[in-house]
Amino acid sequence: MEFDVEQGTAILTRTPSVMREMLSGLPPAWTDATEGPDTWSPYTVVGHLIHGEETDWIPRAQIIIAQGADRRFTPYDRFAQFRESEGKSLQELLDEFARLRTDNLAILRGWRLDDDQLALQGEHPALGVVTLRQLLATWVAHDLGHIVQVARVMARQYRVAIGPWHAYLSVMNP
Amino acid sequence: MEFDVEQGTAILTRTPSVMREMLSGLPPAWTDATEGPDTWSPYTVVGHLIHGEETDWIPRAQIIIAQGADRRFTPYDRFAQFRESEGKSLQELLDEFARLRTDNLAILRGWRLDDDQLALQGEHPALGVVTLRQLLATWVAHDLGHIVQVARVMARQYRVAIGPWHAYLSVMNP
Repeated sequence: MEFDVEQGTAILTRTPSVMREMLSGLPPAWTDATEGPDTWSPYTVVGHLIHGEETDWIPRAQIIIAQGADRRFTPYDRFAQFRESEGKSLQELLDEFARLRTDNLAILRGWRLDDDQLALQGEHPALGVVTLRQLLATWVAHDLGHIVQVARVMARQYRVAIGPWHAYLSVMNP
Repeated sequence: MEFDVEQGTAILTRTPSVMREMLSGLPPAWTDATEGPDTWSPYTVVGHLIHGEETDWIPRAQIIIAQGADRRFTPYDRFAQFRESEGKSLQELLDEFARLRTDNLAILRGWRLDDDQLALQGEHPALGVVTLRQLLATWVAHDLGHIVQVARVMARQYRVAIGPWHAYLSVMNP
């Protein structure tokens, strides 16, 4: 499937409410659960999505669209949420994510991107030359990947509880 | 994490609305997408969840609770949805799933299960002896596993579109 602004936006619009339906009001036994040391809880994931809204997707798209002399992206901090979520409730994070996403989608829509703009390039600090189209497709896939992660982390809390059904539930296996 | 009726129900209650937020109104390019031949689309998954409400979780729990002479479960048809979803829109399936889930959770709550009842046993046609506690935990984990699947199937539609970011998004890799 090729990236299409309309179809991609359909996913991006839904992610905050998907996260809210999955997590809002759930006991911490679910929302603070992880897959083991150095893995992320649903709470951590929501903080990570917030940091992406603030520093990754739209800021990088702006660098590409500006087509200035330096089109190199600022490296993304994958661990910022451990600092920035501190003291915030999950509910606050879910609200903040929804607010930032709404603002960023308004910016995206305002650009009315055409194919020529989607082909414009920037420079990823590690991956090299990338197009705006690839960046926006990654925004979408990244959302979906973290929905996968949140559901998987929670499913695996019942790895032992399901007993012999373990054999049938592929979500339990790495 | 041990299975607990309250905590498990918190997930079971949310699944229909999570599926609705993820899928309702999305273009068929997303909802009919698969991971290749003989794999399921989000549309197929919702039909499968409906069949589970009708024939699997609560009917099997009823067999266990009755503690009759024959506690063997009827084998579950993993492919029933290809027949039963025929001619139905995704929206109809989402509504049907929500309705059935609400009814089944009312039955579950009505039982006011205690630890002794949760330890009661039934016989799975392939896995052998299982407890009610394991069955209910599997209901929860099964929901989450299919949320994982739906998000993963959609993410993978952009496997090529994300270009070099492929290296960073583990959801793309089997």
